[in-house]
Amino acid sequence: MTEIRLLDYLSCVPDFPKPGILFRDISPLIGDPQAFKFAITQFSHYANQLEFTHILAIESRGFIFASALAITMAKPLLLARKPNKLPRVSHRQSYGLEYGQDALEIQAQTIPAQAKVLIIDDVVATGGTLLAAAELMRQANVSIAGALSLLEISELAGNKRLLANGMAAYSLLSV
Amino acid sequence: MTEIRLLDYLSCVPDFPKPGILFRDISPLIGDPQAFKFAITQFSHYANQLEFTHILAIESRGFIFASALAITMAKPLLLARKPNKLPRVSHRQSYGLEYGQDALEIQAQTIPAQAKVLIIDDVVATGGTLLAAAELMRQANVSIAGALSLLEISELAGNKRLLANGMAAYSLLSV
Repeated sequence: MTEIRLLDYLSCVPDFPKPGILFRDISPLIGDPQAFKFAITQFSHYANQLEFTHILAIESRGFIFASALAITMAKPLLLARKPNKLPRVSHRQSYGLEYGQDALEIQAQTIPAQAKVLIIDDVVATGGTLLAAAELMRQANVSIAGALSLLEISELAGNKRLLANGMAAYSLLSV
Repeated sequence: MTEIRLLDYLSCVPDFPKPGILFRDISPLIGDPQAFKFAITQFSHYANQLEFTHILAIESRGFIFASALAITMAKPLLLARKPNKLPRVSHRQSYGLEYGQDALEIQAQTIPAQAKVLIIDDVVATGGTLLAAAELMRQANVSIAGALSLLEISELAGNKRLLANGMAAYSLLSV
């Protein structure tokens, strides 16, 4: 497979969703089948270096990468959703975002006790979202294999924060 | 590939998200790699009968099936998102749900003029969401190849309503 410069497929949008935030838009990447395939192949490459049984997808853009990875690697897909979307929720965890506040919910009963979960999201900024997902796994007594993301905003040091919390954390790209 | 009874992988949750609504939870289906793979193979089978160039994913659960289908069929993936999630939005369309009211937004500039879009979602109830997505395509002067979904709630006749609006509409399952 030809090397593809994935960063070229993330367009920058200043002041979205709030003033001062430089948003990275994944639309050009997923809109190009070769680039999307290359990204998922890279995700698989990192994932293969971790011992995991399940993939946890973080709503909403995390669903896109996690689903494509799950179908490619034939792994069970679990969801961490925004509040009031999942039925039969067992645990909820609030977290701070680069902008604002949010929460994630899971159905712990869908996760076997021996699962080792690989958490997938698109962008790591402060790492707050991934830490909240990790906290949900801990509350559910589920092991975490690590966290993979497409892009890290390096000045916000999210992956370092995750590593400091004992979690293997990698991003395909860094800006 | 062995035939899998996909309906067995959709659990029913009464009175979610509102009293009187019988929610179909996709968690068991996507949590089983064979069932998820079988569902995506079935989606591909229907998709191959339509002439399309792009896949439009409807937020949020539509992302899961559309992304897996896009990576499997090597097609460009477009997003129809809930309000204020996408940057550089060109069109917004409100719609009524089986419960409540919502809206979808697109970036028309990411869709080539000659595109024929296949719209993907998880569940068709009244068809309001898919009709809103279709209306967005019309506003953007983009052709629609059809709409595919995992499950139709037949008493609400969503696919019939879509067909009456001139859109090929199929679901893998019907209850």
